Amino acid sequence: MESIMIYVPIFMAIIGLAFMSAKRAWVLKQDAGDGKMKEISDYIYEGALAFLKAEYRLLAFFVVGASIALAGISYVVPTTHILIVVAFIFGAFFSALAGNMGMKIATKTNVRTTQAARTSLPQALKVSFGGGTVMGLGVAGLAVLGLTGFFIILFHLFMGGIWTSTEDMTKVLETLAGFSLGAESIALFARVGGGIYTKAADVGADLVGKVEAGIPEDDPRNPATIADNVGDNVGDVAGMGADLFGSYVATVLAAMVLGNYVIKDMGGKIEDAFGGIGPILLPMAIAGFGILFSIIGTMLVKITDDNAKEAQVQKALNIGNWVSIALTAVACYFLVGKMLPETMKMTFFGEGLQDISSMRVFYASLIGLFVGGAISSVTEYYTGLGTKPVLAIVQKSSTGAGTNVIAGLATGMISTFPTVLLFAAAIWSTYALAGFYGVALAASAMMATTAMQLAIDAFGPISDNAGGIAEMSELPKEVRTRTDILDSVGNTTAATGKGFAIASAALTSLALFAAYVTFTGIDGINIFKAPVLAMLFVGGMIPVVFSALAMNSVGKAAMDMVYEVRRQFKEIPGIMEGTGKPEYGKCVEISTKAALREMMLPGILTIGFPIAIVILGKLVYGDNNQLIAEMLGGYMAGVTVSGVLWAVFQNNAGGAWDNAKKSFEAGVMINGEMTYKGSDAHKAAVTGDTVGDPFKDTSGPSMNILIKLTCLIGLVIAPILGGHVAGAEKTKGVNVEVITTDAPASKNTSREVVVSKTNVDGKVSATITTTMVENDGEPVTQTQTVEGTEAEVNKKLEELKKQ
Amino acid sequence: MESIMIYVPIFMAIIGLAFMSAKRAWVLKQDAGDGKMKEISDYIYEGALAFLKAEYRLLAFFVVGASIALAGISYVVPTTHILIVVAFIFGAFFSALAGNMGMKIATKTNVRTTQAARTSLPQALKVSFGGGTVMGLGVAGLAVLGLTGFFIILFHLFMGGIWTSTEDMTKVLETLAGFSLGAESIALFARVGGGIYTKAADVGADLVGKVEAGIPEDDPRNPATIADNVGDNVGDVAGMGADLFGSYVATVLAAMVLGNYVIKDMGGKIEDAFGGIGPILLPMAIAGFGILFSIIGTMLVKITDDNAKEAQVQKALNIGNWVSIALTAVACYFLVGKMLPETMKMTFFGEGLQDISSMRVFYASLIGLFVGGAISSVTEYYTGLGTKPVLAIVQKSSTGAGTNVIAGLATGMISTFPTVLLFAAAIWSTYALAGFYGVALAASAMMATTAMQLAIDAFGPISDNAGGIAEMSELPKEVRTRTDILDSVGNTTAATGKGFAIASAALTSLALFAAYVTFTGIDGINIFKAPVLAMLFVGGMIPVVFSALAMNSVGKAAMDMVYEVRRQFKEIPGIMEGTGKPEYGKCVEISTKAALREMMLPGILTIGFPIAIVILGKLVYGDNNQLIAEMLGGYMAGVTVSGVLWAVFQNNAGGAWDNAKKSFEAGVMINGEMTYKGSDAHKAAVTGDTVGDPFKDTSGPSMNILIKLTCLIGLVIAPILGGHVAGAEKTKGVNVEVITTDAPASKNTSREVVVSKTNVDGKVSATITTTMVENDGEPVTQTQTVEGTEAEVNKKLEELKKQ
Repeated sequence: MESIMIYVPIFMAIIGLAFMSAKRAWVLKQDAGDGKMKEISDYIYEGALAFLKAEYRLLAFFVVGASIALAGISYVVPTTHILIVVAFIFGAFFSALAGNMGMKIATKTNVRTTQAARTSLPQALKVSFGGGTVMGLGVAGLAVLGLTGFFIILFHLFMGGIWTSTEDMTKVLETLAGFSLGAESIALFARVGGGIYTKAADVGADLVGKVEAGIPEDDPRNPATIADNVGDNVGDVAGMGADLFGSYVATVLAAMVLGNYVIKDMGGKIEDAFGGIGPILLPMAIAGFGILFSIIGTMLVKITDDNAKEAQVQKALNIGNWVSIALTAVACYFLVGKMLPETMKMTFFGEGLQDISSMRVFYASLIGLFVGGAISSVTEYYTGLGTKPVLAIVQKSSTGAGTNVIAGLATGMISTFPTVLLFAAAIWSTYALAGFYGVALAASAMMATTAMQLAIDAFGPISDNAGGIAEMSELPKEVRTRTDILDSVGNTTAATGKGFAIASAALTSLALFAAYVTFTGIDGINIFKAPVLAMLFVGGMIPVVFSALAMNSVGKAAMDMVYEVRRQFKEIPGIMEGTGKPEYGKCVEISTKAALREMMLPGILTIGFPIAIVILGKLVYGDNNQLIAEMLGGYMAGVTVSGVLWAVFQNNAGGAWDNAKKSFEAGVMINGEMTYKGSDAHKAAVTGDTVGDPFKDTSGPSMNILIKLTCLIGLVIAPILGGHVAGAEKTKGVNVEVITTDAPASKNTSREVVVSKTNVDGKVSATITTTMVENDGEPVTQTQTVEGTEAEVNKKLEELKKQ
Repeated sequence: MESIMIYVPIFMAIIGLAFMSAKRAWVLKQDAGDGKMKEISDYIYEGALAFLKAEYRLLAFFVVGASIALAGISYVVPTTHILIVVAFIFGAFFSALAGNMGMKIATKTNVRTTQAARTSLPQALKVSFGGGTVMGLGVAGLAVLGLTGFFIILFHLFMGGIWTSTEDMTKVLETLAGFSLGAESIALFARVGGGIYTKAADVGADLVGKVEAGIPEDDPRNPATIADNVGDNVGDVAGMGADLFGSYVATVLAAMVLGNYVIKDMGGKIEDAFGGIGPILLPMAIAGFGILFSIIGTMLVKITDDNAKEAQVQKALNIGNWVSIALTAVACYFLVGKMLPETMKMTFFGEGLQDISSMRVFYASLIGLFVGGAISSVTEYYTGLGTKPVLAIVQKSSTGAGTNVIAGLATGMISTFPTVLLFAAAIWSTYALAGFYGVALAASAMMATTAMQLAIDAFGPISDNAGGIAEMSELPKEVRTRTDILDSVGNTTAATGKGFAIASAALTSLALFAAYVTFTGIDGINIFKAPVLAMLFVGGMIPVVFSALAMNSVGKAAMDMVYEVRRQFKEIPGIMEGTGKPEYGKCVEISTKAALREMMLPGILTIGFPIAIVILGKLVYGDNNQLIAEMLGGYMAGVTVSGVLWAVFQNNAGGAWDNAKKSFEAGVMINGEMTYKGSDAHKAAVTGDTVGDPFKDTSGPSMNILIKLTCLIGLVIAPILGGHVAGAEKTKGVNVEVITTDAPASKNTSREVVVSKTNVDGKVSATITTTMVENDGEPVTQTQTVEGTEAEVNKKLEELKKQ
């Protein structure tokens, strides 16, 4: 029997997309200003589109290449269906579509925000946040629509829309992993490429414009100024959107995989009102309701007072955010209660099958919501304006750039302490509550309000751009003051948003990691095996080298920009007097080309290493797939642990330097003296910020993608290494489990009990082999067989254990 | 029967110490100069002693506290003997003694080198390298004497000097671990405290002297100048010495533990010419012969030409180094061939017991020698004067401090790539050759020439100090030219020395890690268990936070120094005119106090976390020691992986910045123009070097100790969590192994074979349970039992497998 529930998330996604369309129409209906404003905004819009077009052209090649590779895999591996290629292409397409939509609306909203700021602050917030909402709902709506839609199609294709077996469902989910892989691949290039683009344009514009030519920032005479503004959209809007799109999809997918595993633990079949797939549908349902609550949340974000300050704007955002989170928590309570069996069975290492009440899954989801918020708060503490760590960096600026840099590095490094402890506590507690399904549900709950998070995130760069347009169009000062308030709040939300993105990426990777282990069918990943340990080291190194490559890429791309701007200053007559027109398009092109060229190497590193490890493993160990799977697992763990650390370190160090520099704008007290912009201390802080820029906008955020994509690639490779490849026929309903217990009978005897359990479509047979050794004598072996249903056999085994 | 071989290493150690004494007498007999030279050198000597005294006073408290804690452990855990406390105290004492000796000779040699440089370069090298030799042989001699001596005593006390069982030997080695723990604890404080001291004095002296007062470096009017010179000795000589002393002892110990495990795998007893403990004696023998070869190597280090340049001096050092390494390789061949059974049995995961020829252990030791050299070379490539990466940083200095800092960070980060790959390859290949015993032997071979390595290391700071004394005493220019040549070579050897120290620490930790697993008796460390994974994350975070604390400590300690120097400049009349005498002692005292105060928090972090994890685990899981042991193992792995990465990153970034700055002394070509000291690019490079200073001299080198000490603490805690506590009676010669094989018989049948092997003092019984499932039918189970010796049973199993 098929439940209507399976269609609910799609329905919610469509509501979300409908609401988005309405909002979009409303935003586009707003006055887009006139004259210079419109001209500049058009440049930015076209520049952004030009980047997207060039990027998509390149990505098309990648998608074709990767599709061929995937088709090859599906040909070789019997359990991998050719449809994975279709899923992959659609995943890539949906992600690109979401990015495209987001960029377009963001670049359309900025000028409208400027125009709205000419009337009032509440109106400016309404417009800019409206743009953010469109972005957020677009990403979330497309993600849920695509993933759920594909699931329904595959469920019908492979299983006829009714439950058959966990093995068939595994096949469905393995194919669905293609969708997630496609989305995350696009995210890699969007994040890395966008990150390089935005910083190359920024540095290039500053170095030649501000430093060499001595003209102010955002001056229209600077040929790179449009590229700089495009960069904000390319990096902060499209990059972040693709990142969260990927996390969102991957989290739900991983939770579904683990839900299937729960059903397996419960004997391969459950009876519920949802066609026996309640645990698999639950994460999708949470995602669907999350869209609804995000809509409600966004409707609450408003202010009425034109004289409002940052605090009120922040409060309005917070209210919307917390309401959507609270509603999600309530929904989780009901959804978990309704969709999961009241008592589930889950296998825990060393403890065997355990009864888990569904409420424990709810608690796990609460922990997910809490940790998302807590990690965001920690991020804000280490990077926010006026916080203790940032003020400490300000103080250290008085003794020069060297001490400023050291203080910023140390702040980023120390910030890993609470973040990692929170994260470790989340892993541990959610697992203790409900196994890896609990971990995945925690991640799902956290990601449920992605639409709201993205709306808050995207409104920042929109306001930033709006301010830039106001500056370039020489509008009255009060306009800039209003956009500055929004921009300032946007900086805070950007920092917390980065915290959220890391937390989500980390939990997502963990869930994927768990899904990987169940897909490959290995017992675990034993790092005491030397090849596995070696790969743990290699995995740990990858994020470090990736970050370095990304940082160097920014440097190289920036140099391309510098040469181009210099050329234009020299060759275009009258450019400095404002009579000659700079070729903005050339700079956009240069930045685009450089970003695309430079993102190749990190991309190859990310995608190539897992594949190289499998090939190497195959060469050395041949058919010992178990060991190769463990090696790849060790690599994935290394990337995740090191990636989370370097993400937190780089993002927070970068954020702290940025705000330490910004502190000088309002003036800071150093050694009893008020110090302002232009002072030596400020110059030192500027140096720190230069170091921090690629940290927080390029290499830091790329870590999220790196860890998720690594785990996803592992997941897609998993079937090749899976136990159910060699013994494909065997898995048909047969499940053998070996339990060894060591029960010393008395002081001079030792007893070794080996239980081998065979599960054939629910009929369980257990063989108990007992070896007794008395007083160093000969070992005596006894064998006993118990048969019946899972529950009966377990009961008998329990009785035997007591003997 | 006891073999004479057990006394050979002690004999070698005594030869080493005798040679050291002779060399020491020769060095002290050299002319120590006169007047101002002597005065300055006396100040340095006294300052160094003052630091040591204060440090030892503090450490005495620590040793007492730790001894009480250890006594508590030995009281609670039946297999831990109270003698561990004695071993601990002796380990601490020997390490402190070695450090003391090294510091004394280094501070005595520097002025004698200056004096020798007045006559000729060959003589200056002879004296400075003579001092280094004393240091190297002192450390190595005391390490081997202490460890081997204690082993013999414990072997006689616990086993009566003859082989009884692997369990008794485990007790011996567990107690011996106390010696290593004592040595490493002292190393922690010597490295961290020394690192903080040297940079605090350096920065303090520069900031007030050079920048504020405008007097040159090493100017005797600067009150902090003596503290600065003391710092070189405290950090580079004593810190490095204690570090390598610790690595040396820990490596040999870990190899011995794993040697005992080899004997266990071979049935708990072997027959050889060494009383049945050949595999345990081998690492000690290699260490002993290594001392001999180091002596030979040091005798080859000489030049004859007074007009020699850096290249010739470097060549002389290289010849000595390579000869000692080559001799060690040859010795390994004979020792391995003689001391190990021709064919050994070792358990490999998933492959069961395997026959391993002793030559494979020799190949593993060759890999160790190779990797030590290769990692040193990689370090030199990324940090050496005139190398591509360093020149790239120089180029980036032209666009300011920001780009210089980014380039330096990126260089350090990228340098982890070859280093980690080399290291991973070493783990993998040495394990494949001869299990974890192979890994430990590789480390032992690498560490065998520690005396030579230290001699080369210590000669650098001695020459540096000699140059400083020449400067302060206003000696003729040719003296400074000669010491500068030595100093320059010393900088290169310092970089490669750091590479060697990291490589040794990493391999040592790995060997300790393996020893830990065997001590606790767990099957492995499964990071798919959520609590274990959580601890992997926590462990990964510790090196990052530790580094940040160390860096901040330098900042705080430097500020103390700044205030003191400012005070003296203000309060002492005539100090700037050279008529008033600065209070050097006060500065030494300030630096000492600050260093000791600031090393507390990182120390507590290092020692406290493993203990906290065990306590937390006990609270949550009660008696599930297996899980707690795995959690601690996960933590250790996290610290090691992350620690190696951060060590390489920080050391190499720091080294690269340093030499990028130094490049400006001879002038560098930037954008087609020769650029020198004092240019803007040079100022940017100085900023980079300021950031790099705590990286390479404080936090980076501390990582070595952090990872080794973490693994050692784990090793000492291991018996508490060990399987042989709860089931102590059972392990008496009984060894049960469960092997599961999955052999699909045909397309429609599946076969599951579970083999349970019981080994009672060499008599093996295997039970084979076969479960067949045909066409989804009922499972059919068959049981067979095979008995006999290990070899017979294995043969029968092989035959059965073919069916």
